[in-house]
Amino acid sequence: MSHIIVTGAGSGLGRALTIGLVARGHQVSMMGRRYQKLQEQEQLLGRAVVGIAADLARHEEVEMAFSAAVAWGGLPEMVIHCAGAGEFGPVGVYTTEQIRRVVESNLISTILVAQQTVKLIGSKGGVLASVLSSAAQAGKANESLYCASKWGMRGFLESLRVELKGSRLRLVNLYPSGIRSEFWDNSDHVDSSNFMTPEDAAAYMLDALEARSSCHVTDLFIGRND
Amino acid sequence: MSHIIVTGAGSGLGRALTIGLVARGHQVSMMGRRYQKLQEQEQLLGRAVVGIAADLARHEEVEMAFSAAVAWGGLPEMVIHCAGAGEFGPVGVYTTEQIRRVVESNLISTILVAQQTVKLIGSKGGVLASVLSSAAQAGKANESLYCASKWGMRGFLESLRVELKGSRLRLVNLYPSGIRSEFWDNSDHVDSSNFMTPEDAAAYMLDALEARSSCHVTDLFIGRND
Repeated sequence: MSHIIVTGAGSGLGRALTIGLVARGHQVSMMGRRYQKLQEQEQLLGRAVVGIAADLARHEEVEMAFSAAVAWGGLPEMVIHCAGAGEFGPVGVYTTEQIRRVVESNLISTILVAQQTVKLIGSKGGVLASVLSSAAQAGKANESLYCASKWGMRGFLESLRVELKGSRLRLVNLYPSGIRSEFWDNSDHVDSSNFMTPEDAAAYMLDALEARSSCHVTDLFIGRND
Repeated sequence: MSHIIVTGAGSGLGRALTIGLVARGHQVSMMGRRYQKLQEQEQLLGRAVVGIAADLARHEEVEMAFSAAVAWGGLPEMVIHCAGAGEFGPVGVYTTEQIRRVVESNLISTILVAQQTVKLIGSKGGVLASVLSSAAQAGKANESLYCASKWGMRGFLESLRVELKGSRLRLVNLYPSGIRSEFWDNSDHVDSSNFMTPEDAAAYMLDALEARSSCHVTDLFIGRND
């Protein structure tokens, strides 16, 4: 049994990952902005999980949330950074508020979560798994803001990987394409009804995150069945 | 139970994939150059496998081998192209024979196997999984010939993926870094003793190749535990 931190655990992929981790016997510290969503998960999953509300784009809140997680379950073996947000449409439509929200939710949170992870388990070792997106592999029409934040994450994480070479903290980068979830509720530029389910994507990811003695998955790309 | 074709099945990763597939209940047509190695696998695995000797760099032999596989197990659901070869050293040392061998074993075989796979199951649908290498992601000293063949494979497969868009045949590209096997027996530029085991790499790959209803792994990168 390991202690694993999952961000964005209240809905969509983060929720499915949390449920899958508990089914595999792990304890999960669930972080997210909306405490009510985390409470629903606590009711479902009982004492194997704890909900910790935090805005992961704010340094003090990330620091406090990680401290609370360690107080509950000890140093984590793995951090899965799944929290994120999107705003979509042609480049001209984004408001300053939308731009700030997407950059903070995706890129800034990745940096702050990585800092805490390195601080806590950089020398002990473990895994930092980050959920990027197929939007980090290519440019996409009506997704310029989202792509910007996801390519930024990728550049940060690839650099961190070089920086961590020889350390015992491993980076795993996960690149799903569109997942069927409330993430798309405010978008009309895609039809998410044929997107992959959070459960299917989570199953592949948890298989890839299983520890083996001589090797580990570094990058996983998942596409939908068209 | 599915019928799966594995090339390079006589040793190393191909052997481990075959053993893992049989353990998961599948039938495997094993292709390779050395019939004796395939016979050893037949003795180990019994009626779940058949060995078919072929030089996969020759069009007629690939065609005959695929015909024999279909005669034995029907149309395959999946083809895993694992066969390959390496020659290493600074750029000046490669002989014409070595250059021919690496390009044929890796790149030409990939094209010929893909042609047969598209011909057989391009409309029915299925999976063509190809084992590339971390040498298809970066340039490496003392591996210029090997990298050339693996980058060539990647370019071919990425183009084929675009060409197959909308078809029911899926491409899965697998990128392990160094695997501990006889592949390295004639090399002295690396110490393969800390490379990943064929069994660990095969386990991740077979997990990633499991079918799910809404999505599929498109690319899997595996690094060794340093």
